[in-house]
Amino acid sequence: MTSPTLTTPFTLPDETLDLLFREARTANSFSDAPVSADDVREIFELVKYGPTMMNIQPMRLLLVEQGAGRDRLLPLMSEGNRAKTASAPVVAVVAADVDFHTSLAAHFPHKPDAGDMFAGDAENRSQIARYNTALQTGYFIVGIRAAGLAAGPMGGFDAAGIDAEFFAGTSWRTQLVVNIGHPGENPWFDRLPRISVDDAVRTV
Amino acid sequence: MTSPTLTTPFTLPDETLDLLFREARTANSFSDAPVSADDVREIFELVKYGPTMMNIQPMRLLLVEQGAGRDRLLPLMSEGNRAKTASAPVVAVVAADVDFHTSLAAHFPHKPDAGDMFAGDAENRSQIARYNTALQTGYFIVGIRAAGLAAGPMGGFDAAGIDAEFFAGTSWRTQLVVNIGHPGENPWFDRLPRISVDDAVRTV
Repeated sequence: MTSPTLTTPFTLPDETLDLLFREARTANSFSDAPVSADDVREIFELVKYGPTMMNIQPMRLLLVEQGAGRDRLLPLMSEGNRAKTASAPVVAVVAADVDFHTSLAAHFPHKPDAGDMFAGDAENRSQIARYNTALQTGYFIVGIRAAGLAAGPMGGFDAAGIDAEFFAGTSWRTQLVVNIGHPGENPWFDRLPRISVDDAVRTV
Repeated sequence: MTSPTLTTPFTLPDETLDLLFREARTANSFSDAPVSADDVREIFELVKYGPTMMNIQPMRLLLVEQGAGRDRLLPLMSEGNRAKTASAPVVAVVAADVDFHTSLAAHFPHKPDAGDMFAGDAENRSQIARYNTALQTGYFIVGIRAAGLAAGPMGGFDAAGIDAEFFAGTSWRTQLVVNIGHPGENPWFDRLPRISVDDAVRTV
């Protein structure tokens, strides 16, 4: 079945949609053009407005600059990810705060005891933290692109090792590592095929 | 600790950033202005370009229009979500395809047997499907806003009941329900407080 030609519903211009989605690509190499931790903090200040369940906002970021911090991170990345992670001007370790409920009173002030409902079941709380962190990670990747930067999200790393190295004694749990920078030489592979809308979307 | 004043790194104009993040709000009521399933299919055609692990693209959407389909969905929503879900011109049930690996050869063509690595461990595959669907849901919510529409994501529903009613015999598993439309009367509560960047973002 072929999709009919549809009228675009978008209010943003094509160049914006291209920057955020259609032309945006996962970068595998980065140029020397600097990107600072402060730039990524500003991206966080934008994407923090994306919605989460009961406003729990569990996404946390550890920004790893070039230098001593990066040297601690690299051995914990999969071998195939090390060179690109070394070359990125800044790397974000995206973590879920599995104890988000302890600060929920400040974020859900009309129901100050809302955190109590998550206090008992740590496994359920971890699942909720991880789901909402993943939602926020989607916003974060779009925000990186809104800053004209390329993101390189990676799943290949030793999560328990990163937790032990950087998050010992805290409630932060590593979920994804994202290289951030300006694309370098031969920065990406050919665009991989996308699923057809007819396979992915049904209507009743 | 107060954040220093930072130079904006964004290449998009403030109005765009406002539309997507700063001014965008979760709508709790919807006007009669129509939104069609075809509009949401077009939004999918935009956000499908967002990255997923190994290009697995597990997010699936069931678009529930007004009428018989909506009547089947409403009893499966939490009571507090029924009125707004009834009023939205279109509702998207976001599902994770836990058998994404069976079509991975088409989406990762340089490694046609990539799906095999997910064939054995259904629990691991489900976790991967759910994580990547959540990432894609973040892109989808931004895409709804790029179309000038309001999204109303909801976690309060009977997921097993929706699976049984709409997805029996398939590998789609309900993860979120999102009302989509133009805001109605008194569409949102006051903006809830966001976490401070100093609590959520660290640098090494």
